[in-house]
Amino acid sequence: MFQKTKGVKKMLFKSDELKQVVMEKPRGGPGRMESRCAIQRGGSPEGSAFQLLAVMTLPPGSGMGYHQHAEDEEMYVILSGRGIFSDNGQEKEVGPGDMALTLKGESHGITNVGGDPLVFLAAIVKK
Amino acid sequence: MFQKTKGVKKMLFKSDELKQVVMEKPRGGPGRMESRCAIQRGGSPEGSAFQLLAVMTLPPGSGMGYHQHAEDEEMYVILSGRGIFSDNGQEKEVGPGDMALTLKGESHGITNVGGDPLVFLAAIVKK
Repeated sequence: MFQKTKGVKKMLFKSDELKQVVMEKPRGGPGRMESRCAIQRGGSPEGSAFQLLAVMTLPPGSGMGYHQHAEDEEMYVILSGRGIFSDNGQEKEVGPGDMALTLKGESHGITNVGGDPLVFLAAIVKK
Repeated sequence: MFQKTKGVKKMLFKSDELKQVVMEKPRGGPGRMESRCAIQRGGSPEGSAFQLLAVMTLPPGSGMGYHQHAEDEEMYVILSGRGIFSDNGQEKEVGPGDMALTLKGESHGITNVGGDPLVFLAAIVKK
């Protein structure tokens, strides 16, 4: 996945090569979350600000528990499904195409409240 | 879109509120590109590393010309359609779910080679 040619890294992550990870009770939330990762925590490419780059799937009723980003920021882009996004104590319904940014020091969580899987892209970035 | 409550910024960008921008001959490429932006160049939220966060659409035959990222890095996630992604002189076919990272100092471009719109998420980040 990481190819070096003439000292330049090429980073193209094919969909069928993403690393699958399953988290039970993610961040203390209900159910489980499946992630398909291009970049995993602890595996940031040298020189990159990206700490995580993954497609997350929450089955109906599952949720990522509310948690703080003390050292980095995170972006979500909803790809399909319906969820409730919690952001510093406020709850809002989110659906396909909605995007959320949680800055360093802030907190968030997200729960699937629909009947279909809630699929979203997550990218954690550290300055 | 930016709400301040008790000194905390809340950033939820609803799909139907994204700012639409059309670029003709983007970066010297053929045709045109439509973008729907949560964060636009020059409008990075205070404290955030994100310089751009947008959904891009290239109609069939259109392409973003090959260009260098001298000061930042950019991530693409293909949402739908088929394209050719150029990365430091190599060309690869990309489709839904594929992700690409172009680090600071590297170059890339992308062209729609299919019959449907090529839709992708783009995020530019600066450390």
